[in-house]
Amino acid sequence: MPDRANRRWLLAKRPRGDITEANFEWNETTVPSLEDGQYLARNLWFAYGPTQRLLMGSADPADANEGSTKIGETMPAFAISEIVESRHPVFKVGDVVHGGAGWEDYSVADGTGFAPTYRVPEGVPPDWAIGVFGLTGLAAYFGVSEIAKPKPGEIFVISGAAGGVGSLAVQLAKIRGARVIGIAGSVAKCDWLVRAAGVEGAINYHTEDVAKRLTELCPDGLDIFFDNDGGPTLDLAIQRLRQGGRIVLCGATSLYPATELPPGPSHYLQLVMVNGRMEGLLARDYIPRLSEAVDAMLPLLRSGRLKPADDVLVGLRNAPQGLIRLYAGQNIGRQLLRMDDNTPAA
Amino acid sequence: MPDRANRRWLLAKRPRGDITEANFEWNETTVPSLEDGQYLARNLWFAYGPTQRLLMGSADPADANEGSTKIGETMPAFAISEIVESRHPVFKVGDVVHGGAGWEDYSVADGTGFAPTYRVPEGVPPDWAIGVFGLTGLAAYFGVSEIAKPKPGEIFVISGAAGGVGSLAVQLAKIRGARVIGIAGSVAKCDWLVRAAGVEGAINYHTEDVAKRLTELCPDGLDIFFDNDGGPTLDLAIQRLRQGGRIVLCGATSLYPATELPPGPSHYLQLVMVNGRMEGLLARDYIPRLSEAVDAMLPLLRSGRLKPADDVLVGLRNAPQGLIRLYAGQNIGRQLLRMDDNTPAA
Repeated sequence: MPDRANRRWLLAKRPRGDITEANFEWNETTVPSLEDGQYLARNLWFAYGPTQRLLMGSADPADANEGSTKIGETMPAFAISEIVESRHPVFKVGDVVHGGAGWEDYSVADGTGFAPTYRVPEGVPPDWAIGVFGLTGLAAYFGVSEIAKPKPGEIFVISGAAGGVGSLAVQLAKIRGARVIGIAGSVAKCDWLVRAAGVEGAINYHTEDVAKRLTELCPDGLDIFFDNDGGPTLDLAIQRLRQGGRIVLCGATSLYPATELPPGPSHYLQLVMVNGRMEGLLARDYIPRLSEAVDAMLPLLRSGRLKPADDVLVGLRNAPQGLIRLYAGQNIGRQLLRMDDNTPAA
Repeated sequence: MPDRANRRWLLAKRPRGDITEANFEWNETTVPSLEDGQYLARNLWFAYGPTQRLLMGSADPADANEGSTKIGETMPAFAISEIVESRHPVFKVGDVVHGGAGWEDYSVADGTGFAPTYRVPEGVPPDWAIGVFGLTGLAAYFGVSEIAKPKPGEIFVISGAAGGVGSLAVQLAKIRGARVIGIAGSVAKCDWLVRAAGVEGAINYHTEDVAKRLTELCPDGLDIFFDNDGGPTLDLAIQRLRQGGRIVLCGATSLYPATELPPGPSHYLQLVMVNGRMEGLLARDYIPRLSEAVDAMLPLLRSGRLKPADDVLVGLRNAPQGLIRLYAGQNIGRQLLRMDDNTPAA
């Protein structure tokens, strides 16, 4: 078989401050031959997440670290891919999978790593597979249904409310009858929250005093805080938590290089006064329960009650733009990239 | 009816630093007549807890506050009492109750306040009622059975391990098959933990490096941390929490005047990495579920598998000593006071 051409983006230098296209380098090569336990997959869709920045490491002197990607290696990514060759015991040619891949036409993988590979369930189109049934979707679904468990009328406050996880969690909480207050970082995001998602209140943390606005919007306190942000809002929320309140900590770890700790929430003992609970959620540990999320959300998607907010770029050349947009807060909903116009969608 | 004599201890001044007998004043008076909704109870046993210090307020300039007890009022206490007069709709003459009372022979109460009144269940002697089935017992029982849920072989680390809540929680965790590591503040307490409670490891936080000892005793991390202490050990435990770990926050609030916050646990995001949970427990909110604790623990008490560690003073004159002993860390197990040698016991 002639060697397959493979276009790709390499990590050129670790970020210092904002991520720019200069952190990456375009490269054209051919795919390597497989070893036992590996498969070769043609990448169809990419998703973006803060985990990617963690994998890139950092050149900031304050938190310099090597990440786990070497300079000159393909930039790692979450992808929906179709397996085209396989020496893997589980994943076979023709399988469409969600897993760790790279910004390239074809990725070699063994199914383990920062995003363990799993098969896309029957009947799920690739854009839903990468979004609602990707890791952000699992975080939103299990964060709402297993940890937050909002009851009708409960006050559900969420940070990062218009992002990948947040845009789904907001809708799932609304479907369960919660009153939702979304915190986000731009006018466009707050507009989406109010107009598209129909939240009861939106707070722009760049232009508004979050503490004051929370007190206005929920003067009697809140029942749930779903934290996608990892920032100081957590302590404001804990102070306002009422009897039986729940806090979902969702993946904020990936925002922080390991060498730099955020301050702990100083009002954490409020959890005692209200018999409250704070629980972490790492989406990849919920992969074995994917079918529960599919059973619950596929009917909602088909009926249109749940509308994924996807922000879609097209073409491998644009891959760096997705990460730049994510860190500039420009995406509404899940930032995605479709490889080209012929890539299958819903 | 002639007026009943009533001996009592008044709050004389708010504490600054250590509590001493000078914070209290002995007084002899007669009991007042009842108003509608009140009952008069003869006090039989008292229990001690950090809540009492909170109720006393503080004269320390750093955290000066008025507490909720006025100077010259009877010192508030947790008590087992027998109702001798009643104009209360629920609690009747002859009822033996657990509730808020004062350091005095007879207390007037309405059943509400810092320790809502409840009837002592049938078949429970007063010393068990004030200890195992008092608020500390509820904290230990529900903290272990509802939040910690230790499985056989799991590593259960507990601070304040030889105190009122801790001494019961340690035994309940052992009965469920956990491997228990107790942290306490004296040689005597660590001795009790090892010899009487049979823990797998004891750490004296006054003389040992807790971080180093935890790493030695549980090199692969821990599954549960039961925090009775509210101190910096919480952050050490969070760092060592492993997959599915649970943290029980038990009443530490009462150790802190409202004006002085402890630092938040800076490694709280470890909860995300291990899908971990941190949950607060306020024992008085579990009073409606007392019968569950009785059903579970009464057979254990009768068979001798659960042995309450009670530290018993005798006589109202000694009431201040109980609180002084508690804050000096001299009590092993629950600090109690029996009113006199004729008071009924088990």
